[in-house]
Amino acid sequence: MLWETDELVKDSVLSYTQEETILEQKLLPYDLLGTAAHAKMLESQGYLEKGELEEVMEKLSEMYDEQHEIEGEDVHTFIEEKVTEYTDAGKKIHTGRSRNDQVVIATRLLMKDSCIEISLELLELVKELGEFAENENQPIPGYTHQQQAMPSSTGLWASSYVDALVDDLKLLQSAYEVIDQNPLGAAAGYGTVLDIDRDKTTKLLGFKSKQENPIYCVNRGKHELMLLQALNHVMLDVQKLSEDLINFSEDQKFFDIPKEFCTGSSIMPQKKNPDVLEIARAKADEVASHEHAIRSIIGKLPHGYNRDTQQTKKPLVESIGTTLATLEILADLVAELEVSDSFEIHDDIHAADTANKMVEDDLSFREAYQEVKQKQEYCSGDSIKEPVHQQYVELEKFWKAEKSSFERTKESLLDS
Amino acid sequence: MLWETDELVKDSVLSYTQEETILEQKLLPYDLLGTAAHAKMLESQGYLEKGELEEVMEKLSEMYDEQHEIEGEDVHTFIEEKVTEYTDAGKKIHTGRSRNDQVVIATRLLMKDSCIEISLELLELVKELGEFAENENQPIPGYTHQQQAMPSSTGLWASSYVDALVDDLKLLQSAYEVIDQNPLGAAAGYGTVLDIDRDKTTKLLGFKSKQENPIYCVNRGKHELMLLQALNHVMLDVQKLSEDLINFSEDQKFFDIPKEFCTGSSIMPQKKNPDVLEIARAKADEVASHEHAIRSIIGKLPHGYNRDTQQTKKPLVESIGTTLATLEILADLVAELEVSDSFEIHDDIHAADTANKMVEDDLSFREAYQEVKQKQEYCSGDSIKEPVHQQYVELEKFWKAEKSSFERTKESLLDS
Amino acid sequence: MLWETDELVKDSVLSYTQEETILEQKLLPYDLLGTAAHAKMLESQGYLEKGELEEVMEKLSEMYDEQHEIEGEDVHTFIEEKVTEYTDAGKKIHTGRSRNDQVVIATRLLMKDSCIEISLELLELVKELGEFAENENQPIPGYTHQQQAMPSSTGLWASSYVDALVDDLKLLQSAYEVIDQNPLGAAAGYGTVLDIDRDKTTKLLGFKSKQENPIYCVNRGKHELMLLQALNHVMLDVQKLSEDLINFSEDQKFFDIPKEFCTGSSIMPQKKNPDVLEIARAKADEVASHEHAIRSIIGKLPHGYNRDTQQTKKPLVESIGTTLATLEILADLVAELEVSDSFEIHDDIHAADTANKMVEDDLSFREAYQEVKQKQEYCSGDSIKEPVHQQYVELEKFWKAEKSSFERTKESLLDS
Amino acid sequence: MLWETDELVKDSVLSYTQEETILEQKLLPYDLLGTAAHAKMLESQGYLEKGELEEVMEKLSEMYDEQHEIEGEDVHTFIEEKVTEYTDAGKKIHTGRSRNDQVVIATRLLMKDSCIEISLELLELVKELGEFAENENQPIPGYTHQQQAMPSSTGLWASSYVDALVDDLKLLQSAYEVIDQNPLGAAAGYGTVLDIDRDKTTKLLGFKSKQENPIYCVNRGKHELMLLQALNHVMLDVQKLSEDLINFSEDQKFFDIPKEFCTGSSIMPQKKNPDVLEIARAKADEVASHEHAIRSIIGKLPHGYNRDTQQTKKPLVESIGTTLATLEILADLVAELEVSDSFEIHDDIHAADTANKMVEDDLSFREAYQEVKQKQEYCSGDSIKEPVHQQYVELEKFWKAEKSSFERTKESLLDS
Repeated sequence: MLWETDELVKDSVLSYTQEETILEQKLLPYDLLGTAAHAKMLESQGYLEKGELEEVMEKLSEMYDEQHEIEGEDVHTFIEEKVTEYTDAGKKIHTGRSRNDQVVIATRLLMKDSCIEISLELLELVKELGEFAENENQPIPGYTHQQQAMPSSTGLWASSYVDALVDDLKLLQSAYEVIDQNPLGAAAGYGTVLDIDRDKTTKLLGFKSKQENPIYCVNRGKHELMLLQALNHVMLDVQKLSEDLINFSEDQKFFDIPKEFCTGSSIMPQKKNPDVLEIARAKADEVASHEHAIRSIIGKLPHGYNRDTQQTKKPLVESIGTTLATLEILADLVAELEVSDSFEIHDDIHAADTANKMVEDDLSFREAYQEVKQKQEYCSGDSIKEPVHQQYVELEKFWKAEKSSFERTKESLLDS
Repeated sequence: MLWETDELVKDSVLSYTQEETILEQKLLPYDLLGTAAHAKMLESQGYLEKGELEEVMEKLSEMYDEQHEIEGEDVHTFIEEKVTEYTDAGKKIHTGRSRNDQVVIATRLLMKDSCIEISLELLELVKELGEFAENENQPIPGYTHQQQAMPSSTGLWASSYVDALVDDLKLLQSAYEVIDQNPLGAAAGYGTVLDIDRDKTTKLLGFKSKQENPIYCVNRGKHELMLLQALNHVMLDVQKLSEDLINFSEDQKFFDIPKEFCTGSSIMPQKKNPDVLEIARAKADEVASHEHAIRSIIGKLPHGYNRDTQQTKKPLVESIGTTLATLEILADLVAELEVSDSFEIHDDIHAADTANKMVEDDLSFREAYQEVKQKQEYCSGDSIKEPVHQQYVELEKFWKAEKSSFERTKESLLDS
Repeated sequence: MLWETDELVKDSVLSYTQEETILEQKLLPYDLLGTAAHAKMLESQGYLEKGELEEVMEKLSEMYDEQHEIEGEDVHTFIEEKVTEYTDAGKKIHTGRSRNDQVVIATRLLMKDSCIEISLELLELVKELGEFAENENQPIPGYTHQQQAMPSSTGLWASSYVDALVDDLKLLQSAYEVIDQNPLGAAAGYGTVLDIDRDKTTKLLGFKSKQENPIYCVNRGKHELMLLQALNHVMLDVQKLSEDLINFSEDQKFFDIPKEFCTGSSIMPQKKNPDVLEIARAKADEVASHEHAIRSIIGKLPHGYNRDTQQTKKPLVESIGTTLATLEILADLVAELEVSDSFEIHDDIHAADTANKMVEDDLSFREAYQEVKQKQEYCSGDSIKEPVHQQYVELEKFWKAEKSSFERTKESLLDS
Repeated sequence: MLWETDELVKDSVLSYTQEETILEQKLLPYDLLGTAAHAKMLESQGYLEKGELEEVMEKLSEMYDEQHEIEGEDVHTFIEEKVTEYTDAGKKIHTGRSRNDQVVIATRLLMKDSCIEISLELLELVKELGEFAENENQPIPGYTHQQQAMPSSTGLWASSYVDALVDDLKLLQSAYEVIDQNPLGAAAGYGTVLDIDRDKTTKLLGFKSKQENPIYCVNRGKHELMLLQALNHVMLDVQKLSEDLINFSEDQKFFDIPKEFCTGSSIMPQKKNPDVLEIARAKADEVASHEHAIRSIIGKLPHGYNRDTQQTKKPLVESIGTTLATLEILADLVAELEVSDSFEIHDDIHAADTANKMVEDDLSFREAYQEVKQKQEYCSGDSIKEPVHQQYVELEKFWKAEKSSFERTKESLLDS
């Protein structure tokens, strides 16, 4: 322990309070990036010799490339210990920095990186839905109150998800832009008397700006909550999409779920079950619960670092993984989706249009409505409804540029 | 009932499924605006005579000015009935529009308006905190793990809330910009065969753009969730602020809560209780639960309108009211806040700075840390820490401009 | 204000911290009962003259019978003021009691009473489902993965809800039995030096036992949470029942929802919408969110009374009302439910039974499974599956006995 | 795969839909118990020869003793495959049973076992708190509104948690009693045409009764929710206890948290942080979120098995582990807890008692209240308040008996 002393801390206390290693492992590359930036800044401020910096960077780069398995207390101690084994300069890399600092900067970089990956994967799903809408457009009934209600089309339906998911891309961008502030340099939340240069690390780490107030910098969980809220929206739409796909392929028979996405039953030989969609539907609620967990954990905490906030890491990391995996498999599934050739469309879905056409012939709508209701005769449908959704070219550009920028930051920090 | 027929619907069914009148009442001005825009568009498309439009607008303006109390089924039926009593043209204002349409456009306008009001009120709180930070800056200990830990100041502390709340203003802006799409014209979710002009209503109602896909337009709850997520962040910060103020004014004695914000006890004559802050702390959890309610209600619903979504209105309206009331009273309270003149600061909060100063004298931080730990002698503190937070001039401009724009839209639609 | 002094408390503070009158009104009868019991005890302990008690009881009984509309600060102050207007002895009824005491005892009685009402209403729904299962038993397919899977029956299906709801009755009973402890006498949470007799009020108010620890007595929200958790289960089952009824009456066509429970569309003349079931489905999520609200509000509060807990009253009262209303209308609906005469059952739901029959002929199940899977020939179905569920006679007796007991308590306290 | 056929199911589909092995592993002993009971029943019904049963039991017992690491699809398939490798009779053990059946019975046994363990651990914490209350009783101020308010004692305070946690033991018992129904025999949710004997497996597995309706038997998640609700209460009290302990040992200085339960800071050499209590406080919110997750996942699902319900396993298993670990460490901590010898008690906490004593001298309470308020002179305190809480002997007996009974069931099924 970095803070170890003569007092014996119980093992049970350590095992109870430390996090699962798998979570620590996720932070390793990002903590290495943060440490590299901090070390370079220390050197430029005179706290580290040039030669010391070189040795430190050698070890950090090696650890980055080899992705060591973490041992010991946590990822932050692990890095400091490994570097110190390699060079005495390791003892100085904690100068002007606290573990809070370390975990906050590592988590912030993890969030930026994950946000980029998720947005690019979401763009894949958006494109598959858009292509399906264009290429497989056929008439289906549109539902209200879970009843056939109005003429619709597979294209209109699929493009409604494009429209929703593009809004989610905007929400991801907003969360990303608020997250994109450098918290490094807050130390234990009250800054440091040492002469560190926060603008320098901001630039080295590729942040748009530095986060100003040190107390706010260590207010862990708030930025995590922002990202989780955006993921909640993504998964909400995925849940609705899954619900529709299950209904469309079961009772309503509009679609065939590709066989390679279905599983069987151990007892009923005839079954083809849409398990992927059911699991996706459930995982959306997991992400919503993770948002709830983070909000609850940080709620009512007084200012300054509190250990409670450590527990926000697990719901964050799990939600990122869940969302990515779900988007990937759904994009695959939509790419293979086929419209069925036999299902029944009720005649009365044209009732409203029939009334509307009477309005064109100068009846008031209320009168037309009553007449159609009594006669129950419907004019036949129109031409097929075309897909329609907002554009997302700018969003695509944004995420691709951020991806490149993040890659460049990594390279310039550690790959030289 | 607009859809009433010979069949008798049970009264208990109607009372069970209809909303509280107080919620309907909130939508009245916004439904009138939506109806006015729709009517003007109908006239320009030839579905309404010029004279008919004039009569309709007369009645809508009168209802807007007088804010009638709603009777009957709901606000949408109420408006149609009142206009139809006044002029036969009333029968035509539902042309090319469904109740879904009406409620969606009215709710969207309510959300825009509320978002503006809340942001302006939040700016008031931000300013009060900023002024307190500048004018009442005094040394206090900064806490970690709910212990005195490092030297801090009332200015550094108060400006940490400015920094956080400015991030919330950005989140409100993001939600606002996604909400700011015109859904009017989706009819029952599948468009209409009538020749309506959605660009016209978009312009008349002052939306930045129209929401493209009609199925997505009637997907109620998603935009409500966006706003609630932003309000959840605002109230999360308010909750932390309240927690700090309670701690600071009770056990820690840094602040005096102004007497006019405290209440007494029915049994203990000596008490001065910070009820406002306790209630604010609880109300933050109410808003979080309302977000949860909306997310749950809309979860797993298939595409197309489902009546379930009506139940998103109550948590939306209540959260808006709660947030506004809380911001108002906290801005007042902060304006009156005073730093107490007698509290104790522990000497050992200077331990880290003492170690840091040894680092300046060329010890490694780990060695300095151990030395301070053993000697327990601390150098005295620095000069007072200054407040620091990000700027928000652009955000202030944005919200003031939106306020003006919304006012102009109302005037041009109804006050002529 | 009972605690009013020279200091001016801001009106905005009072309006922000006080509850909606409608919530206070709900507590009036229960606070009167608690006050009556407290007054009787005060007399028997010598703090009130016999004649004083008689005057106090006259006024309390009158207020109970006439259900006055509350004015002023809150229900507790209202009662004290009204009694004091009537007799000077009113000034003494707060002796040995705090407002915390009052609100806790009133809420506890409200919860007991509501729990009885809800359980009896739930028994009505259980009976209607049981009768439907017996009288309208017809073959339907049973679903897995939202597909027709196995032979089932309307009786087996409906009795599965009986089985679940009877478990809920047990959960309600458990909650009730923990709630059924008398908290009166805790004063501000630390007892009183006055010689009050808590056993006496326990007996007068019909509680099974007194709640021992005064700090725990004023720990508001925990018992509310217990009741809400049971209601959450009731509404969860109601939600699933509603989902099934919607599916069965729409795409699957097994049932006809009675017309008097359906509403129409303002734009589509042909629609008959199952709004009651959609609203019930949403209201289940409201109750779940109210449980969440109470849990969050009381979470992390330190010991002793905190004003935050006042905010648990609204989700409590609303959930009780919502659950009662939902059970009533669903019992009505189930009473009118009819099985449709035309729907299609897939042949392959007999696949598992076909394999099972081969097992009777001595094939291992895995071999039979593979053979059925390849041949796709199915033996025809069995006789209809009979309804089956656990008994609930004892639960019915319990709730009826509690109802009588509560009525007797009310009468003996106030109707003499 | 048990249901594998010619169709190629994508690997990504399998990895997306299957659970983490660690969760499967937890179910292994319970699935072995369920399988043993099912096999014994099959033999007594003539579906298995006596010799076949013996071979099957040999393998099941061996697997139980050795706790193999699971490979392959899931725990259920793993057991069937391992037994079938050992004896051809393995092919028959799925007779009259589905995987739903298997998972439901295994989960039910896991819940029973965990509920017993948690209750016994909770009793340990209850005893430690009770002993602390008796042995370390000293005056402290009691708080309201986070202010010193009334005379209290460490004994009164600690016994308030005994009182609350004993209520939780009742809630655990209620949940346990509803959970304690045997679901085995429901097959895929609609029973089986084979002549199985559900009463036999009920007896063999030590259930109090069989769960009657097969559709309800496979309604996964509802019983999990019951257990989680009880755990939520346990952790809610633990959270409040932690909050108090943090306040008491930090600002209020009533207690000293034993050093071996505290951790240090990497940057501030002087710190002793109560991390255990902060983590416990956060973990309470995790359990609350897990309850929320289960409720959300099962909400709105139609009748019959849906794959979504698989996702209830993780929050269940994690909440059980979290609760157990938290109770263990807190019982340890309370056992070492000491009252500090120097803290300040405000004089005015005797104000209410001063007024009450005037009441004994025949002033009305309202008049005494005003007099004390003006004079601000207080009589000195009473003798120390004694601990008080409800008894829990019967609960202790219950849980110990259930523990023995569960042990006997395991032995008689697998250790012969």
